Order: sequence, then structure tokens, then C-alpha cells
Amino acid sequence: MTEPIDDFYAVIPAGGIGSRLWPLSRADAPKFLHDLTGSGNSLLRDTWDRLESLTGPDRISVVTGRAHRAAVEAELPGIADANVFLESEPRDSAAAIGLAAAILHRRDPDVIIGSFAADHVIRGTRTFEFAVQQAVEVARAGYICTIGIQPSEPSVGFGYIQKGDELIVDGAPEAATVERFVEKPDLETAKQYYSDRSFLWNAGMFISKASVLLDELAANEPELHAGLMELAEAWDDRERRGPVVDRVWPTLKKIAIDYAVAEPAADKGRLAVIPGHFDWDDVGDFASLTKLINNGRKNDLAVLGPKARVLSDAATGILVSQTSRVISLVGVKDIVVVDTPDALLVTTTEHAQRVKGVVESLKLTGRGDVL
Amino acid sequence: MTEPIDDFYAVIPAGGIGSRLWPLSRADAPKFLHDLTGSGNSLLRDTWDRLESLTGPDRISVVTGRAHRAAVEAELPGIADANVFLESEPRDSAAAIGLAAAILHRRDPDVIIGSFAADHVIRGTRTFEFAVQQAVEVARAGYICTIGIQPSEPSVGFGYIQKGDELIVDGAPEAATVERFVEKPDLETAKQYYSDRSFLWNAGMFISKASVLLDELAANEPELHAGLMELAEAWDDRERRGPVVDRVWPTLKKIAIDYAVAEPAADKGRLAVIPGHFDWDDVGDFASLTKLINNGRKNDLAVLGPKARVLSDAATGILVSQTSRVISLVGVKDIVVVDTPDALLVTTTEHAQRVKGVVESLKLTGRGDVL
Repeated sequence: MTEPIDDFYAVIPAGGIGSRLWPLSRADAPKFLHDLTGSGNSLLRDTWDRLESLTGPDRISVVTGRAHRAAVEAELPGIADANVFLESEPRDSAAAIGLAAAILHRRDPDVIIGSFAADHVIRGTRTFEFAVQQAVEVARAGYICTIGIQPSEPSVGFGYIQKGDELIVDGAPEAATVERFVEKPDLETAKQYYSDRSFLWNAGMFISKASVLLDELAANEPELHAGLMELAEAWDDRERRGPVVDRVWPTLKKIAIDYAVAEPAADKGRLAVIPGHFDWDDVGDFASLTKLINNGRKNDLAVLGPKARVLSDAATGILVSQTSRVISLVGVKDIVVVDTPDALLVTTTEHAQRVKGVVESLKLTGRGDVL
Repeated sequence: MTEPIDDFYAVIPAGGIGSRLWPLSRADAPKFLHDLTGSGNSLLRDTWDRLESLTGPDRISVVTGRAHRAAVEAELPGIADANVFLESEPRDSAAAIGLAAAILHRRDPDVIIGSFAADHVIRGTRTFEFAVQQAVEVARAGYICTIGIQPSEPSVGFGYIQKGDELIVDGAPEAATVERFVEKPDLETAKQYYSDRSFLWNAGMFISKASVLLDELAANEPELHAGLMELAEAWDDRERRGPVVDRVWPTLKKIAIDYAVAEPAADKGRLAVIPGHFDWDDVGDFASLTKLINNGRKNDLAVLGPKARVLSDAATGILVSQTSRVISLVGVKDIVVVDTPDALLVTTTEHAQRVKGVVESLKLTGRGDVL
């Protein structure tokens, strides 16, 4: 058994709906509340279970919307009330992770925090733990440390982190500086990155002293930082928290932690990276979900839904069934069928990215009742 | 207005479920009860309306299963009770049409009958009427007369009738003898038939004196004929009909009218044909339904279902919606989606013929509740 790491606190931002997984994911049933792996657990619960051995149950916090409070607490019966940070509305990842950093720093100025998305899939617990353990050592040395995933294919769906020079930190044999961040590349570039082992996938994991992260925020986004400090100062006062959240939170700048913290830190040489050798996927759309469930086998039909009544004749792709209807798929290849009580999606894995556009169109055409 | 034809009686066999249109067509909602053209009427009702001007409302009979009696009478409020011939179970078309012939012949020995399927689509009322008028004249001359459809494409989905020599009959300028019947051909043969204008589609329309049809049945299928005569003799006696139907009907040979009457008659030179120049389709599967609704346009999405809430992004094919769900089709080509409350079918027009196999599989796997 791994021993919990002293003064290490996990932060799970549980915010995104996962629009490209509509109509499975939607406002009142966001992606992190779904069991997408067939494990029997939601992605959020899997995330908790993965982190618990590194932190213990009392040092995992979740930042989520007020609307999801009950669902999150139902998924995580072990979570302490003080570890649930509720947003009154979504303000992107810098505000969410920054809020947790500010509150936890106020409670313990020496705390080291690590942020881990609530809706990613990871396989390989021991290698994951080893990467986090190294990252914590790097954070202890004053860096902001990310964990970059060693690519298993030339993906155009993820951003990349270019690894720089080796970094000498005790207990972190794989630590390196970060040369630069790269946005999602085209296929040609992705192939180059894949053969050049120094490019890693950006999985949005950041581990640092809370103080270091807040300093970086203060330098790059002073107003956002000031707002977060005001929130943190009032947070643990039951009577003051509500009014301050209502007043300050909606004014905070919407910006991703990558832009507000990670990239500026990289430019200053303050960002480090540990390569992660575990399987990781952000399950961004139905194409990646299909691949995940089929373990890469192209000629299978992935079926998600314990009550599915399926009759498949030479069909491949994915079927998500949330009803008790009989579903027959005949001769359709790389198909995506998502069957829910009030909405049905039929597309192909090739067009999986376009599902986000469907959600936009439904909003615009007054059919938001199914979003 | 066309005047009704003296002593001409229409017979509408309304029996087939239309398995290749599952889950739209099913045991309790067979194909003939559906509006497949968007006309607002069922195919059965359209058939009635087409025939009424040729026969008047009192000389159209329907042969159907006991289970469909209420639905048929609801669709055809003008039908006389004496014109509804109920089968206790399906015994194929020779028994169905033969029963009508035997009953009507008993009521009026000189009657001329014409059988017209309840679930075909015809466009071009005037040319249809002209073909039937000619066929009745040919029947009056003692022939069994079919109406063969002038092909509009080299179809492999229909049987063919080869036209022979011209037949001199007053009032039937297009009459010809029938050279032979041909089963569904392969594409190469269908192309030859298409360029050779003497091959017509077999649309299952047969017009003859009831006595001539019964004589042909007696010669080819004497036991079937005897059973039908026994039924007809008892039919109009309210007390005797039920017991005789229960005893005799289930023993009747299951055989198509083509084999029991038309082909043997052709061999004896007793079958004639009138070419039909109207648009005709048996709407046998979702591929032909798609073509029908799209009027042949390949790049459209045909939508059937007045309450459909559809969001289509570059989809082509057909969507049948019987629910109020939002249905989004993204980038799928030649797709077939049939959305009903208890069953969903997703296939492509290319595989539309395989739907019949789905129905068989559902029966075999104990999921007959959705058939």
C-alpha cells in the first residue's frame, strides 16, 4: 500500500458538461457523473479512488457547481463538508483551481496541491502514483510541476508539452523542465511529435505549493488573484461566505489555468514536467469513448448501458443505451448511437467532434430542454 | 368524373405485416395501416379512394385478419359490413382472393372482380383507371387479366411479366397475351428487361370474372377450391359462418395467387396483360420508402412522422419518428433510422433488405414483444 503524502492535497475540478458526449452528458448529468468505462463507478468516483491512497480521504477537495452538490456528495460519501467548494456559476479552470488553492493555503500555508480533472480515464495506478509522488517532490523544490502523458499514438486531439533539460530533484528521477506548450497539432506535426519522445500530452494535471500557484496568478492575473483572496478570506466564515461568493465570483475572469499559470510559468523556467507512463484519455468525444471501451479493436460494437437490449448484425462503433428499448443495428460501420429517454443521436466516429455543434444548434433553435 | 363500372367488384387483400419495414410495421400495426406517403391517409385508405370511382363505395371488399377488423373499419367508414371478409389466420393470397371470389360469385354469378394490394403506392389516378377499365373489358372477354407496370428503372426487387402478342378486345387497345412470368432477376437481366419494353413489373393485380378465377383454381388446386366453395356456401348465414371458418380455413393450402392461378393460366393462354403507365411501388423496404419520399433525390433526408423534432447536419436517407424525442443525425449518409416507443432500428438503405432477418432473430431470441 502507498502511504499518503504529508501535506499533499488533491483538488478535483468537476465542472465541464462534456458537450461532445451529448445526449449522454448534459447539464444535469455531466460527464464526470457517468460510468464510461463499465467499471460500475462514475469517472468522479474513479478519480477519488485513484487519489485517496496518495492523500487519504480527508485531503481531497472537489470544486463543482451548486447544482451538482448533491450528486457529488452521493458519489463521494467520504468527502468532508469543508472539502466541497461550490461555484455559483462556471468561471473556467483558473478560478476553480485558484479558489481551492486560496482556501487551502489560508488553512495551511505550506500545503502542496495537485489538480486532477474529474472526468478523465487513467489505467495503471502504480505508475500514476509514482508520477504524482515525483511531481510532489518537484513542487516541494518550488516548481509548478505538470504530469505529461507519454503519447501512445500521434493524436491531434490533445495539446502537447515539450520536455526540456533534465531537472535534478531528489525523489524525482524523471523530472525535466518544460520547453514550451503546443496547441493541438495537425496530423503531420503530431506524427513528428510521436517519433520525438520529448513531446508529451497535456493532461491538465498541475502540482505545486499553493503559495507558488497563487504567486504566479498574482503576477499574471492580479484582479483574478485579488478576487480569489477575498473569497478565501471569507470562506470558512459560514455567515460571510454566501454574500461574498454571490458578489465576487461572477466578476472573476474566465481563463484556463494553462494560460493564467502554466504557460507564463514555463516562460519563466518555473514549470517542470514528469512523464506519465500510464494509460490516459480525456474521453473527449464518442470516437475516443469507442476506442476506450473496445480497447482499440476496430471491428467491435462497444455497448454502454446495463439494460441495453441490442440486436447487432455486422455493426461496429458504439451504442449507448439509457432506455429499455430494443435497438437493432444492421450493417452500420463506425456508427455512434446514443439512445436516451428524450433525445437520440446518430452519427459516426468520424464526425464525433461535430456533436458540440449539435448542442449549439439545439440551444439556438429553442430545444434546450434536452441539453 | 369516372363512372363506376357495372358488375365490377374490387377485392383488397389486407394481410401482410411488412416485416422489412419493422419496427414501423408490426403485427398490430401492419404496413397497410400506415401513412407512408405523407398524404395524411393510410395506404389502405388511399387504395380505397383510388378504387371507389371505379366501383362505387358498395362494391369494394377487404379480406383481412380478425385482429385488424376494427382498424380497417376505422380507416374505411364507408365499407359495408358484408364486404369485410375476416380470416381467422393468414393463409396466403390464393386463399384470401379465392375466398372473396367464391363469396362474391355466390352473391352474383356474373361478377367481375379485381384484386389490388392494400399496401402499394400508386400515383396517376387517371392512367390507373384507364388500365383497370381496359382490364375489365379483357376480363369480360373471358381472360384473367393482370396489370403489369411499365418499369421506370432496371429493378431487381420485383418479378416480371413478359408481354406476348397483341390481343384484340374492344375497349382495351393495349391488351396483350402473357408470354411468361419471371422471378426477381439479377441486375444484368433486369437491365436487359428494362431496355426491352415487353417486360413489365408484376404488381399482383388480377382482374377476371369470379367464375373464371374459380375454374382456374379448381383445375390447379382442387382441394383449396373445394374448401373455398364450402366457406362461401355458409358465409352469408350468420350462424353457420363462424363454425365453418374455424373448421375449414386453417386447413387451406398456403399458396400465392401467382402460382395457384396466374402462372398456370398463362401456360394455357388464358392470361392477358394491360401495361400500366402510372407510378407504382410496393414500398417493400426502407430503401424504396426513402426513394418514394425523396422523389428519387439522393441527397435529401426523408422524414416521416408529423411530430418529428429533427436536427440534421449533412445527413441523407430516411428518418421515421413515432416519438417526441429530439433526434440528431450528424454526417450519416444513406442512413435509415426508425424511432418508435419500444424499438429503434439503425441501418442503411443498402442493408434495408436485411431488416426481415432482424424480425426473425427477435422472434428466435424471445423479444417478440416488439414485433
